[in-house]
Amino acid sequence: MTVQSKIKAADTVTKEDLEGLSPQQLRAVFREGRWSGGTEGLARGYAQANLIILPKDVALEFLIFCQRNPQPCPIVEVTDPGSPMITQWAKADLRTDLPRYSVYKEGVLVDQPTDISEYWRDDLVGFLIGCSYSFEQALLNAGIPLRHQDENKIVSVYTTNVQCVPAGRFAGPMVVSMRPVKRDQVVRAVQVTSRFPATHGAPVHIGDPTLIGVDLNRTDFDTGVFELAEDDVPVFWGCGGTPQAVALASKIDFMITHKVGHLFVTDKLSEAVAAI
Amino acid sequence: MTVQSKIKAADTVTKEDLEGLSPQQLRAVFREGRWSGGTEGLARGYAQANLIILPKDVALEFLIFCQRNPQPCPIVEVTDPGSPMITQWAKADLRTDLPRYSVYKEGVLVDQPTDISEYWRDDLVGFLIGCSYSFEQALLNAGIPLRHQDENKIVSVYTTNVQCVPAGRFAGPMVVSMRPVKRDQVVRAVQVTSRFPATHGAPVHIGDPTLIGVDLNRTDFDTGVFELAEDDVPVFWGCGGTPQAVALASKIDFMITHKVGHLFVTDKLSEAVAAI
Repeated sequence: MTVQSKIKAADTVTKEDLEGLSPQQLRAVFREGRWSGGTEGLARGYAQANLIILPKDVALEFLIFCQRNPQPCPIVEVTDPGSPMITQWAKADLRTDLPRYSVYKEGVLVDQPTDISEYWRDDLVGFLIGCSYSFEQALLNAGIPLRHQDENKIVSVYTTNVQCVPAGRFAGPMVVSMRPVKRDQVVRAVQVTSRFPATHGAPVHIGDPTLIGVDLNRTDFDTGVFELAEDDVPVFWGCGGTPQAVALASKIDFMITHKVGHLFVTDKLSEAVAAI
Repeated sequence: MTVQSKIKAADTVTKEDLEGLSPQQLRAVFREGRWSGGTEGLARGYAQANLIILPKDVALEFLIFCQRNPQPCPIVEVTDPGSPMITQWAKADLRTDLPRYSVYKEGVLVDQPTDISEYWRDDLVGFLIGCSYSFEQALLNAGIPLRHQDENKIVSVYTTNVQCVPAGRFAGPMVVSMRPVKRDQVVRAVQVTSRFPATHGAPVHIGDPTLIGVDLNRTDFDTGVFELAEDDVPVFWGCGGTPQAVALASKIDFMITHKVGHLFVTDKLSEAVAAI
């Protein structure tokens, strides 16, 4: 019995069932409502993406905001206004093909459904924004361990005092993820992640967290915190939480995102979209 | 007498007068209407950019088009809708700070002024798109000669049969520039230009022109044609002529661009914005 037929035979599935499935197969499982959990570790090697859906009347400003802040907000695809269809990084329907969503009205979380068909409107535009899962695999491939994976935590995420370049109503501080890197691997970590501009690219800061307004023991998010060893250097990358936080703070009346950790799985191999 | 004071003393200037001027000084000369010629070779080392100004009602679709076609259309900056001010790649006014413009109404060229203040409207959005001058300097630095410079021609530009990924009303074939590269330098040419995604990046095609619908002896533009030697390989890069051609073909009712060869000179060193 293949993995796929095993899946087909079951009403719901476990994360182990999903291992080895292709991005297309995974999106089918999500679409059928048989998996509503996280996507970390699934379809290894394929890029995953953050989702933000906004009304068309703020889409131009939002796209300009992302263009001005490519490290936290690397846009990988934008739908045609009014269309929920992804055509470049996969052939997929944003209303159904993620495992779970967050729906915000007037800046307040109102629902976390597994399907947003009932929320879709013909004035919405979908934005896919690169996710750090891609460069994390590249770090592992280069022999740079990921502490949060080793400790079975979510990567640490912080709000900095570094202001993004504003665009219209979109303004606010950059959100970053932090990974402890051994001092003698910091240069390699910069080189490796620079190859992936579509998934946040190179670090935005290395070393002293206080220079960007971060206290490593206080995250503004529900994420892990690390004990730093003597030879650990904190390395900070732009985080896809930035555009969500900025959009929420701008009091957009309606927004849908992926639920944290429940990302869009693309058909693009991360290595196939590396800069070089 | 410094170069600058020599400039200040003259009503108009020659291209030699402009050599050694900074981007800021050059933009001042353009703003004062004392140079309306081309910008090739000026402010060496600094990125130059193509300009397209469009009405806001098509700006979102145009930006999505560029996002989907990053090699011919690498957006480096977008103005706030209604504003002619560049704030990131320079502090500059798009109405005055280029040497010469082309103004199109209903797809027809109606004027080529040195100042577009009288044409500015509060619904316009300015787009700067990276220009190949940046990676050309990098090719020269790597010992890869540029035939069109050696022969004192404009680089060859062709319309291909490769369709861009469309977005709304924006659709059409990719326009490319071609440079003959010696066979043993082709790999290095790919490596060198890959570092500059903001200025068209890596080639889109190497070798047989017929595979992309190009006859090397027939350009659709007023550009040079090269005799290829036995060991020459034609190498094709995405060209900033693409978004202009696509915007014109889409019958936008109003558009302003730089005049061909009369680009926006930015304050960014090309090497400072290289991918790695």
